[in-house]
Amino acid sequence: MIRFNCDYSEGAHEKVLEKLIATNREQTEGYGTDRYSAQAKELIRRLCGRTDADVHFLVGGTQANLTVISAGLRPYQGVIAADTGHINVHETGAVEACGHKILALPSRDGKITAGQVEACCKAHRDDADREHTVQPKMVYISQSTELGTIYSREELEMLSEVCKRNGLFLFMDGARLGYALAAEGNTMTLEDIARLCDVFYIGGTKAGALFGEAVVITAPSLKEDFRYLIKQKGGMLAKGRLLGLQFLALLEDGLYMEIARHADELAKQLREAFCKAGVSFLVENTTNQLFPVLPDRILEEWKEKYSFSYQQRIDEKHSAVRFCTSWATRREDVDLLIADIEKIVL
Amino acid sequence: MIRFNCDYSEGAHEKVLEKLIATNREQTEGYGTDRYSAQAKELIRRLCGRTDADVHFLVGGTQANLTVISAGLRPYQGVIAADTGHINVHETGAVEACGHKILALPSRDGKITAGQVEACCKAHRDDADREHTVQPKMVYISQSTELGTIYSREELEMLSEVCKRNGLFLFMDGARLGYALAAEGNTMTLEDIARLCDVFYIGGTKAGALFGEAVVITAPSLKEDFRYLIKQKGGMLAKGRLLGLQFLALLEDGLYMEIARHADELAKQLREAFCKAGVSFLVENTTNQLFPVLPDRILEEWKEKYSFSYQQRIDEKHSAVRFCTSWATRREDVDLLIADIEKIVL
Amino acid sequence: MIRFNCDYSEGAHEKVLEKLIATNREQTEGYGTDRYSAQAKELIRRLCGRTDADVHFLVGGTQANLTVISAGLRPYQGVIAADTGHINVHETGAVEACGHKILALPSRDGKITAGQVEACCKAHRDDADREHTVQPKMVYISQSTELGTIYSREELEMLSEVCKRNGLFLFMDGARLGYALAAEGNTMTLEDIARLCDVFYIGGTKAGALFGEAVVITAPSLKEDFRYLIKQKGGMLAKGRLLGLQFLALLEDGLYMEIARHADELAKQLREAFCKAGVSFLVENTTNQLFPVLPDRILEEWKEKYSFSYQQRIDEKHSAVRFCTSWATRREDVDLLIADIEKIVL
Amino acid sequence: MIRFNCDYSEGAHEKVLEKLIATNREQTEGYGTDRYSAQAKELIRRLCGRTDADVHFLVGGTQANLTVISAGLRPYQGVIAADTGHINVHETGAVEACGHKILALPSRDGKITAGQVEACCKAHRDDADREHTVQPKMVYISQSTELGTIYSREELEMLSEVCKRNGLFLFMDGARLGYALAAEGNTMTLEDIARLCDVFYIGGTKAGALFGEAVVITAPSLKEDFRYLIKQKGGMLAKGRLLGLQFLALLEDGLYMEIARHADELAKQLREAFCKAGVSFLVENTTNQLFPVLPDRILEEWKEKYSFSYQQRIDEKHSAVRFCTSWATRREDVDLLIADIEKIVL
Repeated sequence: MIRFNCDYSEGAHEKVLEKLIATNREQTEGYGTDRYSAQAKELIRRLCGRTDADVHFLVGGTQANLTVISAGLRPYQGVIAADTGHINVHETGAVEACGHKILALPSRDGKITAGQVEACCKAHRDDADREHTVQPKMVYISQSTELGTIYSREELEMLSEVCKRNGLFLFMDGARLGYALAAEGNTMTLEDIARLCDVFYIGGTKAGALFGEAVVITAPSLKEDFRYLIKQKGGMLAKGRLLGLQFLALLEDGLYMEIARHADELAKQLREAFCKAGVSFLVENTTNQLFPVLPDRILEEWKEKYSFSYQQRIDEKHSAVRFCTSWATRREDVDLLIADIEKIVL
Repeated sequence: MIRFNCDYSEGAHEKVLEKLIATNREQTEGYGTDRYSAQAKELIRRLCGRTDADVHFLVGGTQANLTVISAGLRPYQGVIAADTGHINVHETGAVEACGHKILALPSRDGKITAGQVEACCKAHRDDADREHTVQPKMVYISQSTELGTIYSREELEMLSEVCKRNGLFLFMDGARLGYALAAEGNTMTLEDIARLCDVFYIGGTKAGALFGEAVVITAPSLKEDFRYLIKQKGGMLAKGRLLGLQFLALLEDGLYMEIARHADELAKQLREAFCKAGVSFLVENTTNQLFPVLPDRILEEWKEKYSFSYQQRIDEKHSAVRFCTSWATRREDVDLLIADIEKIVL
Repeated sequence: MIRFNCDYSEGAHEKVLEKLIATNREQTEGYGTDRYSAQAKELIRRLCGRTDADVHFLVGGTQANLTVISAGLRPYQGVIAADTGHINVHETGAVEACGHKILALPSRDGKITAGQVEACCKAHRDDADREHTVQPKMVYISQSTELGTIYSREELEMLSEVCKRNGLFLFMDGARLGYALAAEGNTMTLEDIARLCDVFYIGGTKAGALFGEAVVITAPSLKEDFRYLIKQKGGMLAKGRLLGLQFLALLEDGLYMEIARHADELAKQLREAFCKAGVSFLVENTTNQLFPVLPDRILEEWKEKYSFSYQQRIDEKHSAVRFCTSWATRREDVDLLIADIEKIVL
Repeated sequence: MIRFNCDYSEGAHEKVLEKLIATNREQTEGYGTDRYSAQAKELIRRLCGRTDADVHFLVGGTQANLTVISAGLRPYQGVIAADTGHINVHETGAVEACGHKILALPSRDGKITAGQVEACCKAHRDDADREHTVQPKMVYISQSTELGTIYSREELEMLSEVCKRNGLFLFMDGARLGYALAAEGNTMTLEDIARLCDVFYIGGTKAGALFGEAVVITAPSLKEDFRYLIKQKGGMLAKGRLLGLQFLALLEDGLYMEIARHADELAKQLREAFCKAGVSFLVENTTNQLFPVLPDRILEEWKEKYSFSYQQRIDEKHSAVRFCTSWATRREDVDLLIADIEKIVL
């Protein structure tokens, strides 16, 4: 069985492991106040071109999302997101459990537009009984999105502008940020993101680390007392250095981008194979997730050999499924799959 | 200015006031444990044909909704509702503030169907990662709905059946229950509701009382410790008898239905006048709320004379608005409005 | 049975009822935006000497407490209170249900001191791992306290000063504020309270109204969007004018203080009778609650004739109980009780 | 600088690391549904003598605590704990943030007694207004406690009995369970714990793992849908196998107990040295935490050489501090410290 169902089937890149092994018996301060975490934070600030940013390391994405959102909202405020957004569909109501409504906007490609955000704010502002409705205060986007698409720099600038104008925080979930930055057609840099977002994170779990997300906060009002929230929400790792060390390994020599390019490149080969076979996609993208629409009979055939994830029914005989590549995907596995794609008869 | 914007512009029916006045200096136990509350509970049980039901009096609708929903759900469970449902749009995220996601289903007329509920449950059940998504556990409906429509007995039976089959509680928000029961075409009795719902309430605030909703619980697991929740959520009125007394006044001699019929009848006259004038409606219904689609120029004319509430824009020149009648609406005010409706030139 | 167990056994003062009756069929705006609420707010601002204050009317005390505390705290912040404080012992964890820890300080008389608050803040500040502990952000006090005692103006000034110095909000629960203001030995005015507290309320439920507490906010940061919180927490009364009207009746002609003096005076007579009979008190005070320590055999005798509330066991044969007078207490009932007190043989 | 301030200054035991390294490139299912997690769960069930137990792996202690407590309580229920309990003092109000009050009982040695629990339940039961107070539903204890003491088997049996009788869940925080099981004088086995507690965890973070706690649930009602809660609270590790693998390494060959004995033995040597030097302790215990009371001038001298944690002021010139040993503590470091202890002149 070859796993293409997600991008977290393996452990960590060997360079990450080596760093953990090399420092294993060293004694450090706990809870992320150690020297390695400090170095990693400094490095991230440099890469983002924001010496004023606060950086915090969290273990996982749901934890990062609920902690950031809790930091930004008062009890009656909500967060705008695409209806396909991870916080809206795959976190068991974690945001609501922190007391906040998600103001879900319809999306076909995983993205929301500045226009949608503006309309949502305007509807609230114009409501005579606005205090009977949830007040929008944050916009949550994912880069790349849950459908593998990416925002262009222009789109992010427009979102940022509409957020500023309406007093909203702009928050980017970067669980797959590497795969977005390395994607064909990407026009955005880490510096752009740090300039345009109030808070975002650089995902490690799906991109070479054992686990870990590096939250970068640029908005002053979000920085205050953030560590209290990390602790309260159960996200403060006792041996915080494990996070700092992993991000050092990923970011100090460009490893993060290198392995992201590897995944995107392999995804591209799969995409081309599907195209050649006449297979269409639920949504077009250039990152490490593919959403081909395939006959159920082929999925049935493949399921003993490959692991992939079920996305949605298209019609009686076809379904959209998800195939992922990752930093760990092996070329030979991709070649095997391509050979099978080439055999598809639609 | 004549107010048709809502059904809570006046105080209370005189018979309700008289009851409060007559008992004013009597000393009773607090927190709803007094004799009048006991009598009112007993009366409601009798009217519902459910001697086993628990009855609790709460001050208002949002409070009733959040308390009932908190009683029925574990933290990771959610409540299914029409996207137009009061809890989804007009309670400032009260349900989310209690930690629960509202699983909003699309609705054009304020109602949801058994088929929609079944599909929602099936989608959850079939999800390989179902623990990453909110588990449906309750269905919230309003009778009459926020758009003035009503569920038929057959529809309620189907909803009840699908809820039982899927282990969901069925909860009916009856803020406007009187207007539904009195509506032309209604096929449902209070006994039907008590038989088919796990919990519902008989609304007083919008139907003759100063304030108050009578929550009726038939499902044993919802009954347990309900008073703890009322207290915790701030809904336990010190002088609880004020609620018992009001419901006694409304229910002991049929006043509740009498004043509801009054409102529905006046609404019918308005509806017929609009129809005669060629005015269409956002949605058809037979209760005390009307949603005519009117030219903006007429709304502009009327706004000094009548108060009504804005519903939504239909096109560049037309809007849907809401006119309500109530237990307190005066015939002469309706006649004035009808005279103006007759002058409409579309 | 004569009830001395609490101060909310009757309905409302007749002048309050008259106001409701006189306006009953008038049509007004909902949710407290009506003219009567506006007048009452203006009157309260004047009485407090704070033209800049925001005033909001809420139905009850628990609701007022949880709404104010939610308004003032970020998720990881807590509220300091006496361990005897109503929020700590008699609100079913309402504050915790909003996500906040109560930092309970030991108290024998229902009061906390500026020194205790300072020590609590210092302990937090000095903690090397302070982000692992709840951050104090508000001080909750009751006037009069749950044990009937009152803060002097000097004590309130010291509390206010320590709060300002430590960045805490000072919040006074005034459910029994009238009885405190009217108490023998009181040195505090409403203006003092408005000057020294960031937020407080003038209690109506226990002092002449059917229900209702008037929350007065002077701190700018607490004012923002307060109505959203009222609505979310279920405290926004549809017919908000009912609250405005009641406070107009209580405050426009000095009724509030007059009836408070009545209660305090009757309590004083009871107190003197107990003293003369050699009965000691759990705590000394001058307001409308008395906490005599009585032999259980006398309590047993009295329980068919009087209703009082059990406070705590003192020793094998004695208990402290609570007797309350109120705006509605009748002189003849007090005389009956005094006659029985005079018969006590210890 | 030698660190004795806590028991999580290093990485992981080498055997733990080796397991991670050996399996690093294997592909497994995510979220703890992999074969290694299954093996580790099976092993734990066997060690506990409970084939019916559910086992879940969580990343850290605060997360484990808040997830378990959320699973066990309805909104108005609270958890009884020693006032020194970790959840009460060092988790930034995490339990309250989930909506629950901690019913803190006074403790001098970190333990609570069955008698205290019984009295707390009785007080609630006997309260005429019990629904105005938080209902006790769970007892939280730590083994070893935050003060290094341990419950005897007899004490645990009595706690278990009182919990059963009062319908409470008994929950043991086992962050330092190894150090308790290995302690001199311990009379409790893992099987005893699994028999007497409804839920507990075997701590990895402080005992040889990089991170991780193994939650063992025996009470059927706590088992239901527990994974939904893990996910919602942000505790579901994508690469769940990392947790399974670590517990396999710790538990398959007795490593867990071996390293715990190592720590306890070194702590004993320190304890004896302190005793010989005439130093007293804040509390007596036999596990890996020591709380000597030392002159401030000595602490001042030592602080450049050793890291220890400040516990509390004893008098003007003395403080209680904490020294910890751990699985990773080196004998030579202990010897250095002993040499300094021997030089103490009180």
